[in-house]
Amino acid sequence: MRIATLSIGDELLCGEVVDTNQSHIAGALFDAGLRVERHLTVADDEDAIVAALTELGALCDHVVATGGLGPTPDDLTASAAARAAGVPLERSAEVLEHLARFAQRVAGGMHPLNERQALVPEGARLIPNPLGTALGFTVRIGSASCSFLPGVPFEMKPMLEETVLPALIAQTGVAPQLRSTLKLFGIPEATAAARLEGILPKGSPVQLAYCVKFPEVHVILRTPAGHAKPHRAAVAAVRDRLGHHLFAEDDQTLDGVLADLLRATGATVSLAESCTGGLIAARITQTAGSSAWFLEGAVTYSNQAKSRMLGVPAPLIEAHGAVSAEVAVAMATGARAASGADLALSVTGIAGPDGGTEEKPVGTVYIALADRNACTAKRHQFPGDRERVRSITCFTALELLRQHLLTLPGASFRA
Amino acid sequence: MRIATLSIGDELLCGEVVDTNQSHIAGALFDAGLRVERHLTVADDEDAIVAALTELGALCDHVVATGGLGPTPDDLTASAAARAAGVPLERSAEVLEHLARFAQRVAGGMHPLNERQALVPEGARLIPNPLGTALGFTVRIGSASCSFLPGVPFEMKPMLEETVLPALIAQTGVAPQLRSTLKLFGIPEATAAARLEGILPKGSPVQLAYCVKFPEVHVILRTPAGHAKPHRAAVAAVRDRLGHHLFAEDDQTLDGVLADLLRATGATVSLAESCTGGLIAARITQTAGSSAWFLEGAVTYSNQAKSRMLGVPAPLIEAHGAVSAEVAVAMATGARAASGADLALSVTGIAGPDGGTEEKPVGTVYIALADRNACTAKRHQFPGDRERVRSITCFTALELLRQHLLTLPGASFRA
Repeated sequence: MRIATLSIGDELLCGEVVDTNQSHIAGALFDAGLRVERHLTVADDEDAIVAALTELGALCDHVVATGGLGPTPDDLTASAAARAAGVPLERSAEVLEHLARFAQRVAGGMHPLNERQALVPEGARLIPNPLGTALGFTVRIGSASCSFLPGVPFEMKPMLEETVLPALIAQTGVAPQLRSTLKLFGIPEATAAARLEGILPKGSPVQLAYCVKFPEVHVILRTPAGHAKPHRAAVAAVRDRLGHHLFAEDDQTLDGVLADLLRATGATVSLAESCTGGLIAARITQTAGSSAWFLEGAVTYSNQAKSRMLGVPAPLIEAHGAVSAEVAVAMATGARAASGADLALSVTGIAGPDGGTEEKPVGTVYIALADRNACTAKRHQFPGDRERVRSITCFTALELLRQHLLTLPGASFRA
Repeated sequence: MRIATLSIGDELLCGEVVDTNQSHIAGALFDAGLRVERHLTVADDEDAIVAALTELGALCDHVVATGGLGPTPDDLTASAAARAAGVPLERSAEVLEHLARFAQRVAGGMHPLNERQALVPEGARLIPNPLGTALGFTVRIGSASCSFLPGVPFEMKPMLEETVLPALIAQTGVAPQLRSTLKLFGIPEATAAARLEGILPKGSPVQLAYCVKFPEVHVILRTPAGHAKPHRAAVAAVRDRLGHHLFAEDDQTLDGVLADLLRATGATVSLAESCTGGLIAARITQTAGSSAWFLEGAVTYSNQAKSRMLGVPAPLIEAHGAVSAEVAVAMATGARAASGADLALSVTGIAGPDGGTEEKPVGTVYIALADRNACTAKRHQFPGDRERVRSITCFTALELLRQHLLTLPGASFRA
């Protein structure tokens, strides 16, 4: 089965929007055992869309197209699809009903412009859109069955997962490929690759790939269906060699792993943040149900706030500076004492671009963790600009928390 | 001049990497006055690359290709380019010299694999790479001059800017296009489009486009070079019709606009966040220098934290619930009083998926702003999942702050 994707939109070819739909669709199909052979992007230009669809229709068995289904005059996909399919546009009663139902949920009702969305190629099969006005549709063009989805990722994703993918899988009878992603932190890509040299036996069907998603490094293992045993063996071997840097696998994230550990151990957490300015709290509270383990966070940018909210003695700040191990420890112990949490994490540092000194240059960060028994701070020197320093500080602090939680009763990490 | 881009790489068609090169190149060319007509992505498969290059070589005057120039065996671009151009590969002394120079800078020297990178199509013009081993090259394929660049964005970007773009501009003699982006909040795309109907005089060279970047809606005006007057007039007309929803233009962001306003008015801010869990603080402190106006933030997830950190009376929480106008007001006034800031912003709400009731369903959020004179809270009902509720809450709160700052002496918004 030859599959292509097509993205439609001026905003993509003017560089205003990064095309995340392409990679999302490619990844979802890959996991299902299908492979996208080529991807094409064209502008909101009816002739260009017709040309692209005609080409892909001659080349492929299936095309997944996104974009250009909205209500505005530059949304030309339905009309181009009809032309490429050689059928007229028809006004769909089903779409009109959908629009009417949708209008009731939206303050102010439906705008008349939206009625354009009721025009679909004659004979097209509709694809439900639970989250927006634009229904998708499937229509035959050349030798290909072409599915059209809206370009808004939030609407496109459930339509792909609930309608397009199941139909493709049923049609092709493919078995899912095997893919495992081992997520590492604190090791450069080249070092990880060097450590894994020769790890696959000769003739192994497993393919190793590396992917940097700052500050994470991902090792990806891809194996065709039917080779589960060598795949599992390779995953185990990678885990074995890089275990210390492994914080999550596959769909797991550091936030999710932390949430599981906090739930399993029953530990509660408070935060005291300076240079990360709320970033750590925002990540922890991203997880639904986080109110069960997260009590509070203090974003203490000013010295007064450090003293008043966390009880850090002003003379301590004066003596050592706000960015110091002493203040990091006082922030963490203060946050723990005030909130009554089992654990408290603190960070204080210089994110830049200003504020650095010779002794404490930009990127100097102290991170401390307090529990019932003790509190220690560690000094870090992170490279990069403000955004990277903040982001790696956040990651390092959460990783410190994860390592600590692993030592508590009840904790476990997928073996 | 017809221009296409080509991305080469399995990781793109397996969905492991989002193709940011495509949008970067498209944007850079657009701003220079050139327009990418279509984009193609193919896998690390020599036949597929040759087919793509042959197609684009017949269709275009110029192709900018990225990826597949690395040292590993799955890097097949040079060999495919030679085949598509109908010339042999040759070992380039210039590349070998570059590799040797580069090896001296790298710890551990050059890996023997890198020597593969010295093979380029015969007669190709080399493109310097100041930051990596992979030199680029330009070669004629069909009617197109095709430039090949490495896929690593960090290396690709300077090569595009320093060599490929200047050559294209010199060759075509184009002048930069005009592009303006007006960023709106609190108005749906369709409503914005409807309000702007008929805004362009007949025959105007200006093109209007819409782009949703949740929760923002962008109106983009694109005009060919030489039409500055109608472009400016159209921008002014859009500002005029949608002014109330306009929070930023072009490269401005809400965070940046807020920072400018806080700097200009000299106002200081504190935050009290419940359901956003630090997200607002993280956004405010993203801006360098924010310590000048941001004093502190309290992330009060528990009721105890609301009382202790912000002085919200426990009986008030009991009487009205933590998610109520009364508590939002008490949080904001409490945060202001404790910190001594000029302004304090508070949010309390139900981000979901749990915690909703019939009276206060998921998405119910109260946002309050306190200044010296008063504090009022407003109830909002936001749609979507936890992430969207948190993100739109954050945006709404910051927009409330912006509107308030605009009323203070010293404030101004680009006219």
